[in-house]
Amino acid sequence: MTDALTRLKARLGDVADLSKAAALLSWDQQTYMPRGGVGARAEQLATLSRLAHELFCDAETGRLLDAATPAAERLPYDSDDASLVRVARRDYERERRLPADFVAELSRASSTARAAWAEARQRSDFALFQPHLERIVALVRRQAEHLGYADHPYDALLDLYEPDLRTAEVRALFAELRAGLAPLVRAVAARPDAVDDALLQRGYDEAAQIRAGERIIGAIGFDFERGRQDFSAHPFCTSFAATDVRITTRVSRDQLNEALFGTLHEMGHALYEQGTSPALARTPLARGASLGMHESQSRMWENLVGRGRAFWRHFLPLLQETFPDQLGGVDVEQFYRAINRSQPSLIRVEADELTYNLHVMLRFELELALLEGALAVADLPGAWNELMQQYLGLTPPSDALGVLQDVHWSGGLIGYFPTYTLGNVISAQLYERARAELPDLDAQFAAGEFGGLLGWLHRNLHVHGRKFTPSELLQRIAGGGVQAGPYLAYLRGKFGELYSV
Amino acid sequence: MTDALTRLKARLGDVADLSKAAALLSWDQQTYMPRGGVGARAEQLATLSRLAHELFCDAETGRLLDAATPAAERLPYDSDDASLVRVARRDYERERRLPADFVAELSRASSTARAAWAEARQRSDFALFQPHLERIVALVRRQAEHLGYADHPYDALLDLYEPDLRTAEVRALFAELRAGLAPLVRAVAARPDAVDDALLQRGYDEAAQIRAGERIIGAIGFDFERGRQDFSAHPFCTSFAATDVRITTRVSRDQLNEALFGTLHEMGHALYEQGTSPALARTPLARGASLGMHESQSRMWENLVGRGRAFWRHFLPLLQETFPDQLGGVDVEQFYRAINRSQPSLIRVEADELTYNLHVMLRFELELALLEGALAVADLPGAWNELMQQYLGLTPPSDALGVLQDVHWSGGLIGYFPTYTLGNVISAQLYERARAELPDLDAQFAAGEFGGLLGWLHRNLHVHGRKFTPSELLQRIAGGGVQAGPYLAYLRGKFGELYSV
Repeated sequence: MTDALTRLKARLGDVADLSKAAALLSWDQQTYMPRGGVGARAEQLATLSRLAHELFCDAETGRLLDAATPAAERLPYDSDDASLVRVARRDYERERRLPADFVAELSRASSTARAAWAEARQRSDFALFQPHLERIVALVRRQAEHLGYADHPYDALLDLYEPDLRTAEVRALFAELRAGLAPLVRAVAARPDAVDDALLQRGYDEAAQIRAGERIIGAIGFDFERGRQDFSAHPFCTSFAATDVRITTRVSRDQLNEALFGTLHEMGHALYEQGTSPALARTPLARGASLGMHESQSRMWENLVGRGRAFWRHFLPLLQETFPDQLGGVDVEQFYRAINRSQPSLIRVEADELTYNLHVMLRFELELALLEGALAVADLPGAWNELMQQYLGLTPPSDALGVLQDVHWSGGLIGYFPTYTLGNVISAQLYERARAELPDLDAQFAAGEFGGLLGWLHRNLHVHGRKFTPSELLQRIAGGGVQAGPYLAYLRGKFGELYSV
Repeated sequence: MTDALTRLKARLGDVADLSKAAALLSWDQQTYMPRGGVGARAEQLATLSRLAHELFCDAETGRLLDAATPAAERLPYDSDDASLVRVARRDYERERRLPADFVAELSRASSTARAAWAEARQRSDFALFQPHLERIVALVRRQAEHLGYADHPYDALLDLYEPDLRTAEVRALFAELRAGLAPLVRAVAARPDAVDDALLQRGYDEAAQIRAGERIIGAIGFDFERGRQDFSAHPFCTSFAATDVRITTRVSRDQLNEALFGTLHEMGHALYEQGTSPALARTPLARGASLGMHESQSRMWENLVGRGRAFWRHFLPLLQETFPDQLGGVDVEQFYRAINRSQPSLIRVEADELTYNLHVMLRFELELALLEGALAVADLPGAWNELMQQYLGLTPPSDALGVLQDVHWSGGLIGYFPTYTLGNVISAQLYERARAELPDLDAQFAAGEFGGLLGWLHRNLHVHGRKFTPSELLQRIAGGGVQAGPYLAYLRGKFGELYSV
């Protein structure tokens, strides 16, 4: 290893440690921190983020990258060191495009906007949030200009969350999806009584739900020696190292699916993080490749595996043992139908597998319109409600249940939503490939064996961390780019059968 | 505020944020972190500590201190800004005396030694620890030389934990204490059956103990909006801000006193941290003045207040309500006697109030001998056992129950132990002063009123944080220096009566 590479790694290691420390501060804020700690925690998080940014963007990083590049370029493209220099240079050049003053301004504006959003949502009063969102949109436009883009300012934002993804690709993908989904959603919505999920509302002891969920994810492969689960208002997964990955959940006595599938979802993220190569520790490569690729893992385990029949052939007895009164007489088919009920609804995070993506498409349309100036923030609630009617046939009774439901925009996260649907689409592409290579997957699941799929995902995806871009990974694994086909076929097959449509 | 002071505060704020982030990482390591996280956490902690040290010791800090000093010196000595510049300069000059290479070497040696100590203690095999302790002693000697001292190298170490305290003072104080305590301990030990504590071993549900403990400290004044309690193997208190102070506890079904008095002890530390002035936030002044002063607060609440009759006149009914089977027929006098049983024992952290200080004195003697070279590390176990026999009339059956019991030395903490006894001594001095100014304290406690004492401590001690040295504080509050008299009088009165000696 050259001297420059050694020094580059030391510097990137410091940046990684600062970022991971910030991640722990944020985890603590959402799990255990007493309310009084919020002000001091904001200062501490701001300081750690600023110091990490300054250290990474310092000209010395650029000099070390320059010095390390010639030797790295003589290494194989997929070697750890070549990938480190390549990816770190890309990150460096992008982060350097954002002036420190601008980063601080966006950070402050987001802090204020988040507080305003929380109050606006609580009172269901969009006017309280409007001036803050106007400021955020203006700042995000400037962010796009700083970052630069080829075709559309939204490209610059997408690239923050999904490297190399273009707005035009998302438009085309979403158009194909919507054309395929809209008739299916309409047909399913017309038969609301075809699937009954009442058995999920039979009053399930919260602590027993958590214990059962942890037994399930432990059996699948979540390593509790290198991770844990806690409670938070909004479930999430965060990683301080591949050897310390935390997930959170929430639990409802009257909705068995909430904790169960929330836990499976976060476990999917966690398996990705626990599976990154130890050799990548303390580098910018030691995490998932992108938000979309991450979501492909959470969604695969939550939906393609976890909402499948084979999965419950194995795990229903465990749930029945935990809840004999509620589930004793339930068979796999009844349970499978209950956990796959579909119905247009108002809230994205509560939406079922079939209707979920329409919520995302709506947000994508509105983000584009806001960024292009075709839609004024003041007109956003009306536009939201129109699209909800058009996409899902519903009109929110209040802005709290409509345009104010998500935290993302208040935090300056515009360009982020499409990665949710992208994750769904990619999950089906990867799963199709896994089933081709491991043809008896369902039999394995029914026998309680998950190591086949998990090992395949580890080898093909997890271990690489951020070494490759999402499109490089898709090319390597599935031999092509993002394709809506497998996902649409999966949804048509599953919901066509469930609803006889 | 001058420009230099503003910039100094910004820099010290960054250092404080890094240090507090490190404190959270350490808290998490001891409470929730999965075992697999230990390696990555060590790296993260080392990076945060190094970056904080580098930022603080950078020459720019010195320039800002120089520039801020003239204006600060025109302010009243006890003003926040004058104190900030004065204390920060003292810290800066001391930290600059330790070369970065040396700090890193001591940190690495401590990491290795801690692991070796844990294994040595588990196997009760001192030989496994010996080479590591030899290295630590050699490094700590060098540390003392780097730091500089007037009379004795141990002065330099003491000063790290108890600013301005001299070895000669500790020797004199401990000699006086030992002369006073030895006959009392002997007399009490001769009457082992005079006090019965069997009622503490009646099988107490752990969760109920924790709930009762939290009700008690909440009633005293621990602010759960600005703090919380969790579990750890060794109880501690840590603070991320005056608005976020964490304590930990452990609980034993068969020892009611363990969680109860552990919680009161850590609460004492926490009340000090929660009570520091908000104006000192994000400065080096935003914590207790010294280890000894901190221990005076934990010991005052644990022992002088919490092991008193008046306290239990108020709180015994709460415990009886929680544990009617075990405590229903117990009166205050029986309970008071049980929680004050004294008996020579092997383990410092389990020692009673009367014998505790002999454990500390023994360690002080051994540390001095090691540092002076009068005692070789290889001879330490023998010297330990001799002093145990001499001070407490006991011989440890194994090194695990003797010389290997404490973690401190493996972490390079030599000069730390005396602050425990110093805390006991100061607690009695402060308490004597408080009782003089608030003569009906016992009546207040019996009525469940703790705001009188807590307010007095806040006004006189807590609010000042680290603005004053321990001796300045003692001078302001008690009008003099450290005095053994009040503490000896307290112990003689209490145990003389309990044991009729």
